[in-house]
Amino acid sequence: MTSLNGQTIGFIGLGLMGKPMARNLKAAGAEMTVHNRSQGVIEELSGTGMTPAKTPADAAGAADTVILMLPDTAAVEKVLLGADGVISGLRLGGLLIDMGTTKVIATRAFARDVEAAGGDYIDAPVSGGTIGAEGGTLTIMAGGSEEAMEKAAPVFEVLGQSTTHVGPTGTGQVAKAANQVIVGLNIGAVAEALTLAKKAGADPARVREALTGGFADSRILEVHGKRMIDGAFTPGGKCVTQRKDLFQALELARELGFEMPATALNMALYDKVIEAGLGELDHSALIKAIDPD
Amino acid sequence: MTSLNGQTIGFIGLGLMGKPMARNLKAAGAEMTVHNRSQGVIEELSGTGMTPAKTPADAAGAADTVILMLPDTAAVEKVLLGADGVISGLRLGGLLIDMGTTKVIATRAFARDVEAAGGDYIDAPVSGGTIGAEGGTLTIMAGGSEEAMEKAAPVFEVLGQSTTHVGPTGTGQVAKAANQVIVGLNIGAVAEALTLAKKAGADPARVREALTGGFADSRILEVHGKRMIDGAFTPGGKCVTQRKDLFQALELARELGFEMPATALNMALYDKVIEAGLGELDHSALIKAIDPD
Repeated sequence: MTSLNGQTIGFIGLGLMGKPMARNLKAAGAEMTVHNRSQGVIEELSGTGMTPAKTPADAAGAADTVILMLPDTAAVEKVLLGADGVISGLRLGGLLIDMGTTKVIATRAFARDVEAAGGDYIDAPVSGGTIGAEGGTLTIMAGGSEEAMEKAAPVFEVLGQSTTHVGPTGTGQVAKAANQVIVGLNIGAVAEALTLAKKAGADPARVREALTGGFADSRILEVHGKRMIDGAFTPGGKCVTQRKDLFQALELARELGFEMPATALNMALYDKVIEAGLGELDHSALIKAIDPD
Repeated sequence: MTSLNGQTIGFIGLGLMGKPMARNLKAAGAEMTVHNRSQGVIEELSGTGMTPAKTPADAAGAADTVILMLPDTAAVEKVLLGADGVISGLRLGGLLIDMGTTKVIATRAFARDVEAAGGDYIDAPVSGGTIGAEGGTLTIMAGGSEEAMEKAAPVFEVLGQSTTHVGPTGTGQVAKAANQVIVGLNIGAVAEALTLAKKAGADPARVREALTGGFADSRILEVHGKRMIDGAFTPGGKCVTQRKDLFQALELARELGFEMPATALNMALYDKVIEAGLGELDHSALIKAIDPD
């Protein structure tokens, strides 16, 4: 197992994803300084030998590597650039890794700010959900310089089962946007196909089985197709989160001057599910927009 | 290897798929009688020890099992019920297997006609294309009685790498419709995601690599994503065929009284590609509707 002995890590954002990730880094030997908006989790983690930091600047000042796992772009902006933000405490040559799903164009601006403060920036969003965070089996999509990637490699080895260096800063977030487009649209595909099977008098479970191994096979058919058949919609990834990610991808496409019609329709179907009061269910609940029964 | 020694098979429809399938059955030991509308392929196959039949009725009369591999529902209707059709020559207890992609409601009517003539009917459409037909590695989705499936098992073992008995007659075609819905929509998903990656300044090949193994992973991302990146659009499955299958799935949904909005949009995107004169390209050329460059 990769050892992080002697590494100092500041971790900011200890929610459903961040908390198990911080625990895995600690278990691998890193000295952890942690900061979170709400304090319950900080008390819990300080009981396991992690050091609480009062502000993002304090967390950054205590560590060579700072990891952000925050819910959205506004939170990243505040933690980086706000009063007592990371930038004001960052060590010279410090490494900032944003592992949340953050907007691409904002990411490129944040990277310039961090570099101007003498640090390195990597955007490294993940796929794999809480199960991947807990098991250290996340899929990591990273953008940044070769140098920064070398520094970050041991951390990624602890947190993920595969890391792809996509390209320069921002391209990790581009890959994550592409990931979320495919996830949403593949869920929509399986939802229409299994509804067709059911309404046409076939057993959707047998149809799913028949399709496995052929050209229609996908992780979504395996995992979320089974959820749809079982009606098991405890998240996992929520409809509201998937909807937010689709919105960001569409916003990026608009900024780049082209259309993603299937993604736009997919987001409209998520809106329908959210309007029906089902937004906190797993994103496979999209099938309720096709087959409300 | 499964032996078909002593089995007599009538094979009707010897196109890109049917010809290699007939060859595999012959190689496994079956006595083959073959019929096709155009005669070139019949001359070629009679040179390999297969017996030509003048009419579908003759092909049926010479065999215990009759296999159809025809381009559409109208062709199946003509070969079954037309002058000198299969029904007029079918042996008592003969087995009819339709392995093409045929409409669900018409399939149920054909099955009743064959059963009224004293035969058994299986609808067993396939996924896997010409590569699967040549290698005997098709994915077979079958609808029919348990008894008929037992009789057909050795034939399916020769032609496919996996056969799922989905349910009663017609459910094989339901599964195939579901398969085509997912294939079309997953191609559309990968097309929008890889276009987003390219336009946002990331290398689509690295993005595809980063997504492999995560929740966005699929056979379409692997096979057709690579085709899109390489611009390699020699079919494979053609846009016009995919468009026909989507139309049939939408027609079935309409008959069943529900909407498949993403499938309808996907078909409209295929129409756009076909109108641009690209209908004979592989169905991964759908990306041209998103990114014409």
